[in-house]
Amino acid sequence: MNVELICVGTELLLGNILNTNAKYISEKCAELGLSMFYQTVVGDNPDRLKDCILTALGRSDCIITSGGLGPTNDDLTKEIITEALGLKLVEDKETVDRLYYFFNKISRPGQSMTPNNLKQAMVPEGCTVLTNKNGTAPGILIEKDGKTVIMLPGPPRELVPLFEEYCIPYFLKKSNETIYSVMVKLVGIGESEAAARIDDILNNSTNPTVAPYAKTAEVHLRITAKAHDEEQAKAMIEPVFERIKDVLGPYIYSTDEEETLEDAIIHLLNEKGLTITTAESCTGGLLAGRLINVSGASDVYKEGFVTYSNEAKAKRLGVSKDTLDTFGAVSEECAAEMARGAAMAAGTDIGVSTTGIAGPLGGTPEKPVGLVYIGIYYNGGTKVIKTNVPRGRQEIRERTVVRALDLIRTTVLQY
Amino acid sequence: MNVELICVGTELLLGNILNTNAKYISEKCAELGLSMFYQTVVGDNPDRLKDCILTALGRSDCIITSGGLGPTNDDLTKEIITEALGLKLVEDKETVDRLYYFFNKISRPGQSMTPNNLKQAMVPEGCTVLTNKNGTAPGILIEKDGKTVIMLPGPPRELVPLFEEYCIPYFLKKSNETIYSVMVKLVGIGESEAAARIDDILNNSTNPTVAPYAKTAEVHLRITAKAHDEEQAKAMIEPVFERIKDVLGPYIYSTDEEETLEDAIIHLLNEKGLTITTAESCTGGLLAGRLINVSGASDVYKEGFVTYSNEAKAKRLGVSKDTLDTFGAVSEECAAEMARGAAMAAGTDIGVSTTGIAGPLGGTPEKPVGLVYIGIYYNGGTKVIKTNVPRGRQEIRERTVVRALDLIRTTVLQY
Repeated sequence: MNVELICVGTELLLGNILNTNAKYISEKCAELGLSMFYQTVVGDNPDRLKDCILTALGRSDCIITSGGLGPTNDDLTKEIITEALGLKLVEDKETVDRLYYFFNKISRPGQSMTPNNLKQAMVPEGCTVLTNKNGTAPGILIEKDGKTVIMLPGPPRELVPLFEEYCIPYFLKKSNETIYSVMVKLVGIGESEAAARIDDILNNSTNPTVAPYAKTAEVHLRITAKAHDEEQAKAMIEPVFERIKDVLGPYIYSTDEEETLEDAIIHLLNEKGLTITTAESCTGGLLAGRLINVSGASDVYKEGFVTYSNEAKAKRLGVSKDTLDTFGAVSEECAAEMARGAAMAAGTDIGVSTTGIAGPLGGTPEKPVGLVYIGIYYNGGTKVIKTNVPRGRQEIRERTVVRALDLIRTTVLQY
Repeated sequence: MNVELICVGTELLLGNILNTNAKYISEKCAELGLSMFYQTVVGDNPDRLKDCILTALGRSDCIITSGGLGPTNDDLTKEIITEALGLKLVEDKETVDRLYYFFNKISRPGQSMTPNNLKQAMVPEGCTVLTNKNGTAPGILIEKDGKTVIMLPGPPRELVPLFEEYCIPYFLKKSNETIYSVMVKLVGIGESEAAARIDDILNNSTNPTVAPYAKTAEVHLRITAKAHDEEQAKAMIEPVFERIKDVLGPYIYSTDEEETLEDAIIHLLNEKGLTITTAESCTGGLLAGRLINVSGASDVYKEGFVTYSNEAKAKRLGVSKDTLDTFGAVSEECAAEMARGAAMAAGTDIGVSTTGIAGPLGGTPEKPVGLVYIGIYYNGGTKVIKTNVPRGRQEIRERTVVRALDLIRTTVLQY
């Protein structure tokens, strides 16, 4: 079965956004063993959109579209495809109910239901409505004359869950095959270095395949096997996983698809019965934000400190005037005192601190933009790591958060 | 002049890489006032590639291709296009010399010159060779029968410099037009509602065009005019902008392309000489993280509190036991006391607080997942808004942060 992708959106043609949907859907289709020969991006123009749809219907078994399902008159994907298939639009009662429910639950002014929104409840006759839990536009799957057309909303946080919930099972059922994959999540090693260490595995992987994905300061490896049943696929994956573990074991923090780095850390702390607090300068709350991203973090995380000024570092965390005067706020000494002081103030087992130059201003030859100290207090002692990421402000801060999370992980695991 | 983009590469169809070339070229073309109606991704397959090239030649004035210029037999872009244009390939002497020079300078094993590399020196007769300083494949520009075809190598670090050095000057010379755009950034109103209110403007916009973009809890409107010079374009944009301002004025926080919501707020506070602090429960540091995202936030933001537990709310912010017992931590009363308490503790003019149920656990019929109170203390008084966003944990928190930022903005502007 071959699949063709049509992404609808002027914002793509104008280069306002990166087409992450194309990458996601292509990747998933490859894993499913579906051939993709063409991807097209077209704007919200009826003639050109229709032209692309007709071309695709002529050369592919299945068309997946993203975008153009919104409530405005610009959003035309559904109307054009329905017409191209010679069908009519009918109102979907369930979607109408869902829209009313959605808008009733949102009580703020400026987000009330407009007549335009009801346009989103119109669907081609005979289609399967793919219930969108994350937005107002439903996905649509329709089979006609041996062709399948799947329409998905453009926002990735709506498209991805719909693809996982409806499209993957649909394609698997069609093919009589199953795919199974294991995600190996690494932290503390760069993508090039990880790839170099498992070079032979990456180059010789056909089934199972091993594909690396870089995330901010993390590397994820997906091992995917195609087989007649899950049992068989798992058996094929096992030896490949073992070889990866031999080489990269200490960097693996999870093999659970859903588990984030912060999940893994909160679970680890929970398991060990440890509590933690944060004292942040350059990351200014982002580290706390990541930890509290975990539902149930409240058992191990009670409070944290955002101490951006020197005064706050002294007052809240007890960083000494001497340290601030002699070494400055961006120093190993300050990071250590912040971590210890935070743990003392909050009465926790562990304290983690960040202090650095996130730029773009404030760098000096001795303390350049990108210099960050990350401190940890645990078991009566402190440890500080120094990192230097000469990048943009946001990336320095994001990478610091991941390094800090990894420092928590490795420190707790060592004890 | 309209431009069509064809990206050649199996790695794109397999979802191994993000198509950053498409975003880059699209963005540049939009800036140049070139219309882009189609983007296609196709693999290294001669028939399908030829099909795409012929279709594009039939409907567009200019085709830009990326990829498929490598030395292997898989790389076919140049051969197919030359054939489609009815031309012959000839050897480019300068490229041959450059290739010899390039390989002589590279001493690493596995990168010596092969006969295949000389294939890269073959170019369509009559073309302009675009010298690639960052790789072996030259770019090619050719004009024939009123059409322009530009072939660029796939790696972004080769493609981008070639585009900057050769393509931008080429297009500017060709067109006697210029393009200018203004970005109008709104917060506090949903995309549907904003679109509905300026429906007539959106529907009747040709030049200038008005295009809406949704961001998390924000709406951006880009007004773009094409004219003979920037002056004229600005004059065309002015009345459209005025009409948008009439209808949506209070929601506009910026018309500066680069200015984020947090930038606008930090600038506003700076301008008014006000200081601010944060007391976060459900957003757990993310609000502080957004504010400190602004370089130079240190003048208005000194410290913040992440008070996840009730104990921390009482101890750090002085929230009364009575309030926590009677109304609970997720209540209007608690949000108000948090905001006031934070401002008192940090000695700032303004205190902002968040407390809510971010889920997925912890919801009750009275206090469902998504219920959030956002409090602000300013000028001796407090104000609390109640929001209800029945979404996922991450989105509830992100939207709460934007609502809190908007609450700061509107409160400060009112005084």
